[in-house]
Amino acid sequence: MIPDKRAITEALERIRPYVNRTPLLSCATINEMTGGNIFFKCENFQKAGAFKSRGATNAVFQLDSSDLAKGVATHSSGNHAAALALAAKRRGTKAYIVMPVDSNKVKIRAVEGYGGIITFCEPTLQAREETLQKVISKTGAIEIHPYNDIRIITGQATAALEMLEDHPDMNLIIAPVGGGGLLSGTALAARYFGKNTEVIAAEPARADDAYRSFKSRTFIPSVNPDTLADGLRTSLGTLTFPIILEHVNDIVTVSEEGIIKAMRLIWERMKIIVEPSSAVALAAILEEKVNVRGRKTGIILSGGNVDLENLPWYL
Amino acid sequence: MIPDKRAITEALERIRPYVNRTPLLSCATINEMTGGNIFFKCENFQKAGAFKSRGATNAVFQLDSSDLAKGVATHSSGNHAAALALAAKRRGTKAYIVMPVDSNKVKIRAVEGYGGIITFCEPTLQAREETLQKVISKTGAIEIHPYNDIRIITGQATAALEMLEDHPDMNLIIAPVGGGGLLSGTALAARYFGKNTEVIAAEPARADDAYRSFKSRTFIPSVNPDTLADGLRTSLGTLTFPIILEHVNDIVTVSEEGIIKAMRLIWERMKIIVEPSSAVALAAILEEKVNVRGRKTGIILSGGNVDLENLPWYL
Repeated sequence: MIPDKRAITEALERIRPYVNRTPLLSCATINEMTGGNIFFKCENFQKAGAFKSRGATNAVFQLDSSDLAKGVATHSSGNHAAALALAAKRRGTKAYIVMPVDSNKVKIRAVEGYGGIITFCEPTLQAREETLQKVISKTGAIEIHPYNDIRIITGQATAALEMLEDHPDMNLIIAPVGGGGLLSGTALAARYFGKNTEVIAAEPARADDAYRSFKSRTFIPSVNPDTLADGLRTSLGTLTFPIILEHVNDIVTVSEEGIIKAMRLIWERMKIIVEPSSAVALAAILEEKVNVRGRKTGIILSGGNVDLENLPWYL
Repeated sequence: MIPDKRAITEALERIRPYVNRTPLLSCATINEMTGGNIFFKCENFQKAGAFKSRGATNAVFQLDSSDLAKGVATHSSGNHAAALALAAKRRGTKAYIVMPVDSNKVKIRAVEGYGGIITFCEPTLQAREETLQKVISKTGAIEIHPYNDIRIITGQATAALEMLEDHPDMNLIIAPVGGGGLLSGTALAARYFGKNTEVIAAEPARADDAYRSFKSRTFIPSVNPDTLADGLRTSLGTLTFPIILEHVNDIVTVSEEGIIKAMRLIWERMKIIVEPSSAVALAAILEEKVNVRGRKTGIILSGGNVDLENLPWYL
């Protein structure tokens, strides 16, 4: 059940009218600092502010009108929620979103802004799943999981596909890893569309379940992750983990200080707003966990939804 | 002594290898809010983080090596200082920069980063001018004024020229006004390269000397300007004011609250970092001082050099 090359190309055709082909930016200062030739794929400029619009749009636009009649549903603390609400709105249906009560306010407002119908729950995986089941029983909505869904993985793969369309000779792509939807899609795209393009994942050391799962080749869930990178707290999925094991070259971890430093460097030098999860890949380079010297390197900046009143350098 | 059409075209050719052709971005949310079709010229992505690189590069690259032997000098609290230091570095000469002691720390670091030689002075115009004269007497450096210089005005005009190359049918361009270098250049470019393109300037109400000068058709200096928009505190110049009087359609003023609101909207929705001076033009639209409904409108985002530890919504 792994998406093939054609599935990813078709996904890009499917979502193209509804998502942005985001720019690839580079920064002379960061290239000087790292010795690399780095291209940043700016998914912070994506619709709804994150790459999640790719997967959600790909999933929702594959459903036919009768499937969609009762709406779609998910549990998500953030970017997938907003992306799904927007995709549902575009198809003229409802999106039922279960969100933990401690979700980022900006992300809650975004879901509301796209007409999503929110049910709040306690911030535990169990409460999220139970609440979602109740919502689905009541509404008959179709669940669209944030990452453990082939349509989602295929959609997320289109970010790397776009990057490789412009630069098929990319030596390396670095992506953050949370549930693994973006990472597994990126790894497949690199395999299908790259020329020996390596894929490395970066993960916060304080939420290192993917790192440990990868190294032990055994699924290890995320327990009490304690990282600023709020998009990367989730566990891998039964679909994403095997793809990652087979197609990802390595996973490295970074410190919280490294994430803040990299995020701030991107803000100050590139003048773009990225969320902490987006900064993890650059942090891996700055902390010398990945060597990009002399290598054409793509970094996926996953999103830009930040609460501007809670910036990490003010904490 | 007003730059003609050809001078602006030549300036763009001269500076092209050294500056970025910055992107024009649009934002669906802001277009919906305002009813306009707005294109933001992202000079926050310019070299040294502001449009000032255009003028400084144009001035420095017109000097021959013997002129440049003893360096260049200016007084500036910010972006012109960094831009001049970078241009001087590129020509292999020195930049002597007089900066008021209360300058934004980020801007001081930027000047130092480009190898500028800083002399600090009291934060008054008199102290700045006297200190600069001393520095020039001592070093023999050539003064490059931040805005009251034809080469600077011509260089700044290239931002609007690029915009009009892509969209010659722009109905309106809105630019911020401080000393008037950007505004006078923009107005000339609109006249030469636009098709009846109107030019409106936006200014903080708390630094409304250009507004009052324009309305009274008499030069009124900036006295104790008290605005967050640190790039817009200066008085108009003897070269910029006449051009503005002749070629600018109107000047409007905006509140400090409006500037902060517009800045935050750009950060949150466009995911780009702009400094307060850049937000003044959008503030004028949001405060209904300028009506853009149904009009193709260009806004020049002047720069992105912000002290991330002193954001206005934290004050």
